[in-house]
Amino acid sequence: MLDRATQQAATDIATLMHDMGKRARKAARRLATLPAAQKNAALKAMAAEVRAARAEILSANAEDIGAMTANGQTEAYLDRGTLTDERVEAIAAGLEAIEALADPVGEVTASWERPNGLRIERVRTPLGVIGVIYESRPNVTADAGALCLKAGNAVILRGGSDTIRSNLAIHAALVRGLAAAGLPEDAIQIVPLADRAAVGEMLKGLDGALDVIVPRGGKSLVARVQSEARVPVFAHLEGLCHLVIDAAADLDMAVSIARNAKMRRTGICGSMETLLVEQAVADTHLVPICAALAEAGCEIRGDAEVCARFPGAVPASEEDWRTEYLDAIVSVRIVDDLDAAIDHIETYGSHHTDGIVTSDQAAAEQFFAQVDSAILTHNASTQFADGGEFGMGAEIGIATGRMHARGPVGVEQLTSFKYRVRGTGQVRA
Amino acid sequence: MLDRATQQAATDIATLMHDMGKRARKAARRLATLPAAQKNAALKAMAAEVRAARAEILSANAEDIGAMTANGQTEAYLDRGTLTDERVEAIAAGLEAIEALADPVGEVTASWERPNGLRIERVRTPLGVIGVIYESRPNVTADAGALCLKAGNAVILRGGSDTIRSNLAIHAALVRGLAAAGLPEDAIQIVPLADRAAVGEMLKGLDGALDVIVPRGGKSLVARVQSEARVPVFAHLEGLCHLVIDAAADLDMAVSIARNAKMRRTGICGSMETLLVEQAVADTHLVPICAALAEAGCEIRGDAEVCARFPGAVPASEEDWRTEYLDAIVSVRIVDDLDAAIDHIETYGSHHTDGIVTSDQAAAEQFFAQVDSAILTHNASTQFADGGEFGMGAEIGIATGRMHARGPVGVEQLTSFKYRVRGTGQVRA
Repeated sequence: MLDRATQQAATDIATLMHDMGKRARKAARRLATLPAAQKNAALKAMAAEVRAARAEILSANAEDIGAMTANGQTEAYLDRGTLTDERVEAIAAGLEAIEALADPVGEVTASWERPNGLRIERVRTPLGVIGVIYESRPNVTADAGALCLKAGNAVILRGGSDTIRSNLAIHAALVRGLAAAGLPEDAIQIVPLADRAAVGEMLKGLDGALDVIVPRGGKSLVARVQSEARVPVFAHLEGLCHLVIDAAADLDMAVSIARNAKMRRTGICGSMETLLVEQAVADTHLVPICAALAEAGCEIRGDAEVCARFPGAVPASEEDWRTEYLDAIVSVRIVDDLDAAIDHIETYGSHHTDGIVTSDQAAAEQFFAQVDSAILTHNASTQFADGGEFGMGAEIGIATGRMHARGPVGVEQLTSFKYRVRGTGQVRA
Repeated sequence: MLDRATQQAATDIATLMHDMGKRARKAARRLATLPAAQKNAALKAMAAEVRAARAEILSANAEDIGAMTANGQTEAYLDRGTLTDERVEAIAAGLEAIEALADPVGEVTASWERPNGLRIERVRTPLGVIGVIYESRPNVTADAGALCLKAGNAVILRGGSDTIRSNLAIHAALVRGLAAAGLPEDAIQIVPLADRAAVGEMLKGLDGALDVIVPRGGKSLVARVQSEARVPVFAHLEGLCHLVIDAAADLDMAVSIARNAKMRRTGICGSMETLLVEQAVADTHLVPICAALAEAGCEIRGDAEVCARFPGAVPASEEDWRTEYLDAIVSVRIVDDLDAAIDHIETYGSHHTDGIVTSDQAAAEQFFAQVDSAILTHNASTQFADGGEFGMGAEIGIATGRMHARGPVGVEQLTSFKYRVRGTGQVRA
């Protein structure tokens, strides 16, 4: 049984979170009908306030980093949490980039007329209230807050506790920007506590106040959110991306795309983790591609035939086909044909991004039709799996679910819709 | 503690349901890549098999009705569960109507080119596996099964136990049709048990096998599904629809639309339940509208001013503003102005369908912008809230959620999408 102080603290957190939910819902109602110009004015003011608060933000961040260092965090983790003059400027510039995007709200995405003269329009509306749960990367505070606002949504942010001082400093600047433009300050709220119980409350949906939750972070965070959330989640658990070198693949293109898909950046979700080479081109394509990857610093884990053909390879285990390395490692398998490649992807893949290199249009169309992933690429690097590269301007993440949003989640994906039926007195027979 | 036999039965049901889930997922993978012609051949064969099985279906239905009568069910309930020659023919014709719809799968809903030459397309795909939980209306077995199939989805049906014999007979005919066209028989499965534990398993999602659940039935069924489901739900809990008679409403149009919105059919979700008359036209419009409704057999429950002006009215309680009568009763309130009308709708409404009668375009646009409902009508009856009336051909229901599907849920809303990226060797910088 919990002691009285713990019980009281849990009650306080639940009360706090539910109150945030109510305030977010109220703000969302106002945001839903704001003209684009007013939201843009707020985004511009938010950028100015972030720049003006640079010293304050950096000082808060220095405290965060000091505490993390004292706790013995790794270099990579510290780097993700660290802010500099340049990074604060990048946060402000990011707000301006979101300001520059087209406002999706109010866009008519379909319209048609019925034989009885009714005109029906489907028009974009905000989704409502979005919960964003993220790890210790302070820039997400501004990015996620702004993207939700642009689409007319209220947002409740809950950042990693290791950068809570930085997050609160950035959030304070955002709220000053909201106020300057006459927007409700509750449009962007942040959970002011490091207590994990706050996350638990968000996952339960705050009494219906949260419409969707977006987790931003590593696999364990996403896994927890996906398994516990009682509201819809936009996320991907992992990006176990494949590249198929088809029987009709151009060799130079295959080498170039494989190297880029794996090695451009190994830590992003669109990086290739498994290379599937069809038997027909094993003699000609396998070694040059493996050599190019190895030369770029990549470890090759191959099946028996790959190891026999490419001496630099080490044997892959069954586990390798299920592993998202996020590192300079690739698993390589020779498959009988395209059907076998597709079977492999459907067996081991994560439905994120998968690609094929082929000069055979029919093979590409088969791949497009039969692989059930959010993004499929033909003769292009899997690293194009990105909202910016898609022309969406900014993304809050990439989703692999089949509901509502799939692939890059940008401002359009943060909207819902409604139908407007325009009549001249029609009644139903 | 459960006794051993009960435990064993629960285990058996869980095993059965999870096995159905696995088989549905496997069938879904095949369905996803079927050409339209093959799905249509199956729908045509299903219609023929239903007609051929008419005697068998009617005999099963007679047994269901006999048991229901013995249990003392109401006339209305019995009527919904009863099949006749005409109703079996209507089921078959419904299958042919779904065959005639355009196949949404493969439709390119957006395409654009990036400065680097990448061509990006967003293309419709099936959603996957759909669970449909419905009350004792045997026609839903065929309607829902066919609609899911048309969009390339596998479906698990769980119909009301009172018509289980009818449902199984119809389902058997559908499966013969699937087989005749070479489709997997697991494309349309039905839970062969009346045990409610089967519903509990579906609500838990069958280990990830169910992508979405659609409840078809009364408020208590929908409420249970919405509160317990761990997977997305397409549904509306109720259709508490409002009609606003604006200051600029044409009187004849207001009378005609109000009468149709309320009295054409009182039991459907798009029927008007609350009439809001703006003060500016209370003198001129209130009495004629109330008189027309009363003359059509409608009970008027009014606020104090309505009761004072229209002697036939009885006083409305606070509860009336929250009540979906689904009957020949309407609550009527005089509101100060359009803002007050919108406030009333946002306070008491169910975000299903709400309408305004006005000749003032600005008032209509304000109503369209500020009322957060799936369907908004201007100078048209709220009873047009229907997939058929929208031109969608058939619907599996109407959804009031903000995620994925909203408003009528037809074949398009039963799809997801993926992105195809077509390149010529592009790598990311």
